[in-house]
Amino acid sequence: MSVMTQTRTGTGASSPGQKLLTPTYEGDFVIGEHLLLECGRTLVTPTLHYAVYGRLNAARDNAVLVCHALSGSALVGSWWPEIFAPGAVLSLEHDFVICINMLGSCYGSTGPGSVNPETGKIYGPDFPLISVGDNVRAQARLLDSLGIRKLRLVLGGSIGGMQALDWAILNPDRVQRALVIGVAPVAAMGLALNHLQRQAIQHDPEWAGGRYLPQRPPRRGLALARQIAMISYKSAPLLDERFGRNPNRSGEDPWSLNEHGGGLIGGRFDIAGYLDYQGERFIDRFDANSYLAILRTMDTWDPMRGYNSPEEAFGRIRARLSFIGIGSDWLFPPEDVRRFAATIRSAGVQADYREMTSSHGHDAFLAEQAELVRLLQ
Amino acid sequence: MSVMTQTRTGTGASSPGQKLLTPTYEGDFVIGEHLLLECGRTLVTPTLHYAVYGRLNAARDNAVLVCHALSGSALVGSWWPEIFAPGAVLSLEHDFVICINMLGSCYGSTGPGSVNPETGKIYGPDFPLISVGDNVRAQARLLDSLGIRKLRLVLGGSIGGMQALDWAILNPDRVQRALVIGVAPVAAMGLALNHLQRQAIQHDPEWAGGRYLPQRPPRRGLALARQIAMISYKSAPLLDERFGRNPNRSGEDPWSLNEHGGGLIGGRFDIAGYLDYQGERFIDRFDANSYLAILRTMDTWDPMRGYNSPEEAFGRIRARLSFIGIGSDWLFPPEDVRRFAATIRSAGVQADYREMTSSHGHDAFLAEQAELVRLLQ
Repeated sequence: MSVMTQTRTGTGASSPGQKLLTPTYEGDFVIGEHLLLECGRTLVTPTLHYAVYGRLNAARDNAVLVCHALSGSALVGSWWPEIFAPGAVLSLEHDFVICINMLGSCYGSTGPGSVNPETGKIYGPDFPLISVGDNVRAQARLLDSLGIRKLRLVLGGSIGGMQALDWAILNPDRVQRALVIGVAPVAAMGLALNHLQRQAIQHDPEWAGGRYLPQRPPRRGLALARQIAMISYKSAPLLDERFGRNPNRSGEDPWSLNEHGGGLIGGRFDIAGYLDYQGERFIDRFDANSYLAILRTMDTWDPMRGYNSPEEAFGRIRARLSFIGIGSDWLFPPEDVRRFAATIRSAGVQADYREMTSSHGHDAFLAEQAELVRLLQ
Repeated sequence: MSVMTQTRTGTGASSPGQKLLTPTYEGDFVIGEHLLLECGRTLVTPTLHYAVYGRLNAARDNAVLVCHALSGSALVGSWWPEIFAPGAVLSLEHDFVICINMLGSCYGSTGPGSVNPETGKIYGPDFPLISVGDNVRAQARLLDSLGIRKLRLVLGGSIGGMQALDWAILNPDRVQRALVIGVAPVAAMGLALNHLQRQAIQHDPEWAGGRYLPQRPPRRGLALARQIAMISYKSAPLLDERFGRNPNRSGEDPWSLNEHGGGLIGGRFDIAGYLDYQGERFIDRFDANSYLAILRTMDTWDPMRGYNSPEEAFGRIRARLSFIGIGSDWLFPPEDVRRFAATIRSAGVQADYREMTSSHGHDAFLAEQAELVRLLQ
């Protein structure tokens, strides 16, 4: 996810003038043993990079876990600052907020770019499939190490919401409340979009089957993947309002010919210039193999899989759940989120459904934080 | 556009058992002079490949022009057979139906794969920008040569609908009625989707700036472009109903690891297998440069461009128009089609709006022909 900026010079989710929050602590936790994964493989002594905000109280009952989305990091104060605004969802005065970089990512936790301690070589394409549940099990070890037994709240949007729900399923006695925002198991359209993105990366000759050199990553492929993702994060009406059929603002003519008078490729429309810019920005901050790894973590998440009924799959949840759909989201349509919440409720779980009114599409949980806060109050 | 088949062995728009119509005549018409294009260039003696069905009557007042969509051909009897069903829109007994392959295409009319008579070389990336209006002007020459002055009806879906409307605008005294199906000027989301497809082709190393060898076309790039297009032709609910989260029907495990235990790429879901199949099918029947040429013909169409009011742009239309939106179309959303029809009506033109109820998305005008026929009766 990323926030659309009109100027194309924005720095992410922070509003102009918004003070970025500095974590109380940011560092690494190494799980001192093998982490057995759902796929059957093990990760040897994986690292979790994390950040905390605020202070753990003496009763150790003020911990909140925030789970980030696909391309997010542990620095939740930087990408979700309005959640910490006075009177909003989290309080730096009262809460101890933890955010842990996902396994597979390139922001500090063990991922495809890390060295496999067993071989001394970078994992690359040999990085195993990490499930959402694997992340939750690893995160629980980190919380154990911090002496945190219970979470007052766990929350996240998109794949962050998948983690929040898996926390409530896998650790029913440790979670009081969970907020699952803009997400349900990926539907066919979402699986299709991820399949397109995967191919965009794989088609880049620099990808080299995942064994690319760090100095020669598959930049064009990753940029195209990001562009495909960007259209799925935004709603058509928002794109129309922002870009319409305008020529690219840098001054190009969509009706132009090239220098030889050829007409197969012409000047860009504004939306094309915007997408190119988003792709360029992304390749400077994200790794292609990490992107592939987390796409699969997302695709394969299906908490009903292997169960015969919602009761069987969700019956042990003790947390109070809230599901938040986003009206204009076509990657995770609100009706999918509402239906998913109803399925879980049918297992006897306390689960309400709320809907964000926003034209921003899936990105609304990052792009319209004030509206999200209002809905959660 | 193409029709989704459950078996993945279908042959296009024809229903099982549907008798394919054979044209009365199929051949080429060469415009014996230069065709001056809107972009300022000329096409030297371009060829139009066309097919006709039925017979022109003595009064020469039974001619109907069908305009095809992006990857269509002149053989309308093959891709739109139900339009010819007894009591449907067209009658082989009463109508003289003409369908002309678009300039830029690879199905017989002059396109990027044709030899430029001025240089003796294939146009390739030097093929000029052809507007929808350029096509209409070329088509009018062909009709002149057939002695057809007036069209009882001109109709088409998608870019075929753009041509139908341009016929009514550019030749107001030659068109009695026009059906414009599933189309409006391409909105920002559509421009974005076309931008993604263009990049998919351009990123393929075999594309070679458009100067690829016929025996080494950019197959992977064109296949990915087609896959991106396919998701825009279908609705999310239809994909869910058809594919859901099922593993690929050929037998693959989306939760699998590769032979080395790696998890970046796994077995496909069914929707991914479907898209791959559609991409493979397409590269055997379409040319990458033709695809790029027609994407631009579509992107650049904007009959309001350069005019100050709908009255100025559309005031000279004399035909009776019907616009057909498709309820589940997200490439050309029905509200865009309805709004476009209202704009044209505000110029004093007779233009009604009808909406197809279908879960098929943009493809509905090909995939649910019986429903389209019902709406047009």
